[in-house]
Order: sequence, then C-alpha cells, then structure tokens
Amino acid sequence: MPLPIALETELAALLGDGWRTDTATRQAHASDDSRRHALPHAVALPRTREQVVALVRACRAHRVPLIARGAGTATTGAAVPTRGGIVVSFARMNRLLDIRSEDRCAVVEPGLCNGALQAALQPHGLFWPPDPSSFESCTIGGNLATNAGGPRAVKYGATRDNVLGLVAVTGTGELIRVGGAYTKCSSGFDLTRLLVGSEGTLALIVEATLKLAPRPQAQAGLRAFYRDAASAAAAVSRLMAQPVVPAMLEFMDRRSLALLRHNGSDVPDAGAMLLVEADGSFDTLPDILAALGAAADGDGLLDMDVAQDGIARDKLWAARRALSPALRTIAPGKINEDVVVPVSRIPALVAGVEALADASALPIVCFGHAGNGNLHVNILYHPDDTAETARAHAVLPRVFELALALGGALSGEHGIGLSKRAFMARAFDAATLEAMRAVKHALDPDGILNPGKLLPE
Amino acid sequence: MPLPIALETELAALLGDGWRTDTATRQAHASDDSRRHALPHAVALPRTREQVVALVRACRAHRVPLIARGAGTATTGAAVPTRGGIVVSFARMNRLLDIRSEDRCAVVEPGLCNGALQAALQPHGLFWPPDPSSFESCTIGGNLATNAGGPRAVKYGATRDNVLGLVAVTGTGELIRVGGAYTKCSSGFDLTRLLVGSEGTLALIVEATLKLAPRPQAQAGLRAFYRDAASAAAAVSRLMAQPVVPAMLEFMDRRSLALLRHNGSDVPDAGAMLLVEADGSFDTLPDILAALGAAADGDGLLDMDVAQDGIARDKLWAARRALSPALRTIAPGKINEDVVVPVSRIPALVAGVEALADASALPIVCFGHAGNGNLHVNILYHPDDTAETARAHAVLPRVFELALALGGALSGEHGIGLSKRAFMARAFDAATLEAMRAVKHALDPDGILNPGKLLPE
Repeated sequence: MPLPIALETELAALLGDGWRTDTATRQAHASDDSRRHALPHAVALPRTREQVVALVRACRAHRVPLIARGAGTATTGAAVPTRGGIVVSFARMNRLLDIRSEDRCAVVEPGLCNGALQAALQPHGLFWPPDPSSFESCTIGGNLATNAGGPRAVKYGATRDNVLGLVAVTGTGELIRVGGAYTKCSSGFDLTRLLVGSEGTLALIVEATLKLAPRPQAQAGLRAFYRDAASAAAAVSRLMAQPVVPAMLEFMDRRSLALLRHNGSDVPDAGAMLLVEADGSFDTLPDILAALGAAADGDGLLDMDVAQDGIARDKLWAARRALSPALRTIAPGKINEDVVVPVSRIPALVAGVEALADASALPIVCFGHAGNGNLHVNILYHPDDTAETARAHAVLPRVFELALALGGALSGEHGIGLSKRAFMARAFDAATLEAMRAVKHALDPDGILNPGKLLPE
Repeated sequence: MPLPIALETELAALLGDGWRTDTATRQAHASDDSRRHALPHAVALPRTREQVVALVRACRAHRVPLIARGAGTATTGAAVPTRGGIVVSFARMNRLLDIRSEDRCAVVEPGLCNGALQAALQPHGLFWPPDPSSFESCTIGGNLATNAGGPRAVKYGATRDNVLGLVAVTGTGELIRVGGAYTKCSSGFDLTRLLVGSEGTLALIVEATLKLAPRPQAQAGLRAFYRDAASAAAAVSRLMAQPVVPAMLEFMDRRSLALLRHNGSDVPDAGAMLLVEADGSFDTLPDILAALGAAADGDGLLDMDVAQDGIARDKLWAARRALSPALRTIAPGKINEDVVVPVSRIPALVAGVEALADASALPIVCFGHAGNGNLHVNILYHPDDTAETARAHAVLPRVFELALALGGALSGEHGIGLSKRAFMARAFDAATLEAMRAVKHALDPDGILNPGKLLPE
C-alpha cells in the first residue's frame, strides 16, 4: 500500500530535499548489518526538531510507521522497515552542539558519529565511554537506541550509564525534555534511561546530553593464558571482586585462540585468554597493573605478559580486533549473538556452548566482554550448505535458552530488534511483557514508532 | 470514608497479624521526616510477594490507595497517606536473601535496612554505594523509591546506578521481573531504572538485586579552604575534570563555616570549604591524594590540610556531619531542600542563595555534594514567628526557580513527594509531564499507588 498522497504532499513541503522517494535512496535505507532487507516507502532527512515533531504528527494522523535510523550498523534488524513506512535518517541532524568541559558533558544531535565526537573531545582531555567496534561509523542516536557498549563498559558503563538528558519526540508528536547537565536527579520518572535501549519504539531522540569521562594519562595491558575457560572465568571473578576496576576485561575461548594461531598470531595452545587493560595516571599505573596482575594470577594460569603503552599494547588489542573478521576464514556464514550471564556463570556458558558446538557439529567461537559477563557467541556455517545453515539456526535458540537458564539476558549491547524478538517471551514472563507493552502504548498509542521490533506480537 | 467491609475482611484473612487497624499502629505510620501527618485507614505488613500481589489486587478492586513505606525517613512527605488508604510497611519483608560475592551483587527484600546490608557486606570486602545520612535507619526500599544518594555518589553513583534488577508488583497487581545479576543489558525496556525514584507511584518493589562495589583498602581526606564560593566551585570543576575521581567531594559555604566555628570547630574564617575524600589501595593512595590536592589547588585557595585514615579523617567528617544538627542552634525551623545544578553553576547558585538570604533577612546555609552539583539549601527560621515563617516559605519557590534557571533540577536525592510536587510544572513542560502521566497510567491505571505524590494534578 503506497503512502497517502496527502501525507506525501505534506512531508515534501515540510522537508524539501530532505524528503526522498527515489529507489536509490530507499534501497540505501533498506537494511542494516543483520543483512535483512525491506524497502521503506520513503526516507525523511529532517534538519530540525520542529521538522521531526511535524513528521511524527503527520504520520500519526495517517497511521504510517516511522523507523529511526542512525548509520545502520545494528546487527538485529532494528532499523529495517519490515512494515514499510518512512525511514527517518538523522544524517542531517549530526551537530555537536556543545562541549561543556567544566560540567563534563557534551550536547549532541543524534546523527553525530561516535568517532567524530571522540575526536572532538580529545583536545579537551575527555571521552565518551561507549566504544562499540563500529565507533568509526555508528551514530550516537544508534548507540542510544541500542544501549551500545563495548570493551570499556566494564569500567565506564554502557550508553545508558553515560547519558544525562534527552530531548525526544514521542509517538504522539510531543517534544519532551528529560534530564540535563547534571549527574544526580530525583525529580520525576527517569524517562531518559527508559528511552535508551528502546530501539526507536518509544520516541525519536533529537538531542542528547552525554556524560563524559576524563582521559586517563596512561594505559597498559596484560595478556593472561589459562588452562581452561573455568580457570579464566575464576580469574574474571577475582578481578571484578577487588577494588581496582580494569578498564577492559576481554575473554577469548580455546577456539578463538586456535583461530588467532591459524592466522599467524603468537598465542600458545591454551584453554582461554584474558586481555586486561589498566588505566590511570603515570604515577598510579604500575600499582594498578600489579593489582590486576595479582588478581589474574591463580589456579590454571599458564602464562602472563604485560604490554606497556605503545606498540606492544597495540599488538595485544590488534589480536582481539582481528578475531571478528578472522571468523570469516573458518566459514562465510556467521550468527553473532551477544548474550549476558552473571560473571560467575561464564564457565557454565562456555562449557554449554562447547557442548552445543559438538552436538551440532558446527564451530562456535566465544569471546567478548567478560567483566560484564557479555560474551559474543559466534555460530559459524556455510550458507550454501542447507543442512549446515539449518543446524546453525537450530542451535541459536539453545544458546539463548542456555544464557537465560544461567540467569542471564538475551543481549548485552546489540539489542533485540527483529532477530531476538521471538525469544523475548522466553526472557520475560507474560506480566512483564504486558507492562512493557503498556509503557509502549503510553508513549506511542498508535504504534507508529518502529512497529514489529523489540516486543513480541 | 472508611474502608469497605469486604476489603477489610479479605485483607485480615490474607495478612493475619500483618493487618492493623488500631490507632497506635496507624499513628506510627502517619508521618515521615517532613513532619506532615495524615492517618491511614489501616497498615498492612506483608511477609511475602504473594501477599503483596493479593493486597494490590484487592485494593484495586475497591479503588483504595496503597502507600508504600520504608522507615519513614523521607523529607518530602512521599510516604504520608494524605488521601487515606492503606500504608504498606515492608518491615516484615526485610531479608537479605543472597550475597553473591563473585557476581558482586546482593539480593534483598525492600524492608532491609541500608546499614544492616552494609554490615553484612563488610566481611565480604564489599559495600553498596548509596549512603544517605539516614543509612542506619532507612531501608533499601526507601532508597529505591527516592533514588537516594549521599556523599559517595560522586564516585560510585546514587541508587539508580547501583540496582541491577527488580521484582515488583504494578498497580494492576501483576508481578513483574526485570534485570538480574548482570551489569549490562540491551533486552527490552529498562523498567528497573524507571521504577527507581518513582516514589511508590508505579509499582511496589518486593525484591532488588543490588550492584555492589569492592571496599577500597585505604582512604584519606583533604580539607581545603577558599576565599569565596566561586574559587571553591572552580576547584570542584578542576577536581571533576581530571581522571582521579574523588570518593566524596563536599562543599560548605561561608555560613556553614561560621556555624562550625560557633560550635567550636577549628575552621578558619574562609569563604568556603571543600572536603575531598580519596580512596584506593595502600600503594596508590598517596598518588591519588597528590592528584586531588593538585586539582584542589588554584586561585583563591587559602589553606589545605590532609587527614590520613584514622582519627584525623574521622574529625574531618565529624565536622561535616555536625552541620545538619547544628543548624537547629541558629533557628529551630528548617526547610532543607537539595537542589541540583550543573557543577559549573555552583557559584551562581551560592551567590543567588546569598542574595535571597539578604532579601528575606533569613539565614540560608548551603552545603552538600558538590561533585554532583547537589547542594542542600537550608532556610532557617523561627516557627513561632509568623512573619519569619511566611518569609521562609516565600523564599523556597525562588530557590527552585534559581536552580531551574541555572539548568538544574528540583531534587538530587530527596525526591519530590508532596513538598515539591507543586513545582514540577515549573521543572517540566506540559508535554513532558503528560508523558510521565501516561507512564503512570500504563503501570497503575486506577491510580491506587501513592496518589497525590510526585506528579502535579
């Protein structure tokens, strides 16, 4: 069903050259990194919040879906317009409005690139903690929509922990303002953190006040190899139970290490590896590193080395970054999920995934943000092998069941979108989902904001 | 209007000796630290979540208000049953259900005392960050309801930042479960943080999973005196802009210092004082203290001394703690508000409050959690002097207007309750309040949970 003519006319007048119905533009806004694909009826590129308000009101009047879009790097299909309607790209609302160094916050529009913000903050000695691997292309708006994280979250928190205030347009076309340039607040409902992670289903964010952190003077990394996942996970618990919080704490399983060796990295044949990053001042870093090293040491430790700032540290993290692309060398098909479990249950998760890999005769590689219990489970398969593809998709629900049975959650940083939506009814009981639906209905009574995402039917 | 007989009968059968309609019990649950007073029709003391579910469903059927209550230490009237109904005391749901050291979390019932939790955590080398001054008597449930803070919030966050999951009963009598024993989550709407700070207006919390922090090995304090509030506030900005986060960062204005001197403390005649607490390991503490000292130093610094762990440090914090009671020596009447402003606007807040004190011929004393821009503004008056009392109450809205004009908020840790409810319409625009009301209606469609609080009519 095409868009109503009256709506098209109204929006063309409202948005000028920010209103696009040509096939090339629609194609360019039809998918995200989930490789799902659905053509929108049109693409809106507003420049102002007033245009966003008018856009939502017009679409509400015609019951036409609006799908907010950042850079399209999500892995869940959250920005794919599966029910048609209008994709709202924030590419033209990408201004860095203010850097308030003395208040340690920045005011931004949603289309600003995460990496562009980090670059602008560098001369101020500040950074914004969320560091998804897509930081050079993803937008702040997308980070807000998914509650994006990254390795730094273990010390500095994910997106939700680093947002102080929002200006947003709800599904009724009302502009709301919540929070501000302050770090503590007991004044009214916390709609700020409610909107973060809501994947564009409750409101369209048009401005955010972000909490910044001061850049540490110095950083250094530890690389520790363990006999098995259980001893590495015990070290994770020890690291998290002592007062010096690591700046990053990454886990790689036996298969990850085999993959790295296969690709020429100098890693031994160990059961698991931890990468532990320390940050601090020049004066305190040696002691911080010593405390982290002491906590990393224990039963099952095979070897540990330190990489001070500079080339050695870069090499260490390069190995971590090389992992995701290297997966393609095993098999071109990859289902990458980012389940969360309590830190103490990491060994059970890894053992359970190994059992699933054996049972399904598929390589499954686990690595990720161990300090948050947030592991990326990569199920690898050949898409042209139908039997293997079917086995890969059959094993996925069992990974989710495993994480939930261990007291965890479906996603730590990717979100739900389309791909995990069907599993929400296993993650939450009916009453809790009903409460979420009621909140959705409260802010988007006609269900025009990103319909068919996050909450199950 | 008395309670319906059918409801009384049902709840007496449900709760047994946890159902109280005697005057003494009703009187004991009629006020909080705001000194407002209103008798409830009855007091319910449930022991189980199943009882809470049944209680809410019964009250919903009869449209009878339910007012959740912790220890009654709130300063805002949030727990005062101004519309009658049933006060729900969680005094019998006060179990510490689990301490999960390796997952750095604790599972508690809402009636557990903050101080009892801290004592139980001590042998595990852990603590729960929220440290309101009432910690020895207030409950976790009350902390959750108000998003309670305290001095440690500058480094460790307030209540909302230290809650991982909740089990709660909404106004429809449904039990919902959100979050869990993990620190990172992108799975569904964040109802956990929405419920924190909602003052019992959205749901009754029956269980919470709390994020714990490891106890630092060592602590030390700095006491710095400044020429004026502006130079102290500039030091606050410097302290917050460098990478070593103070564990506490408290501000006291000129009047606070005069009060301390008057009561025998050895503080000089300065314009303002900062108390800066450092925590860390034995190895790192000297460097941390040096970094904080360097940041505290600057234009307007008159004097600075260091108090290492032990007696000297206790003395330093004793002076801070003595302030609140000492206010009564100036005047028996006190309006204590805890506005928030961006850190850079502290000088403007203090100057504005000084001008209001002069204009109203009343002593107004400012001190508090400067690292969060959260200052306690204490308006002092003699309650038996009607003119003075009227001036005190007339100056209060101007304090709120000042904080809001500076980009701040009505409350950083006390909440809104009854006392600031009328100012909510100045703090938020109509559309934002409407969104909050819609969320309230979503979770409590009949408006039975703590009616007449937080949101304005």
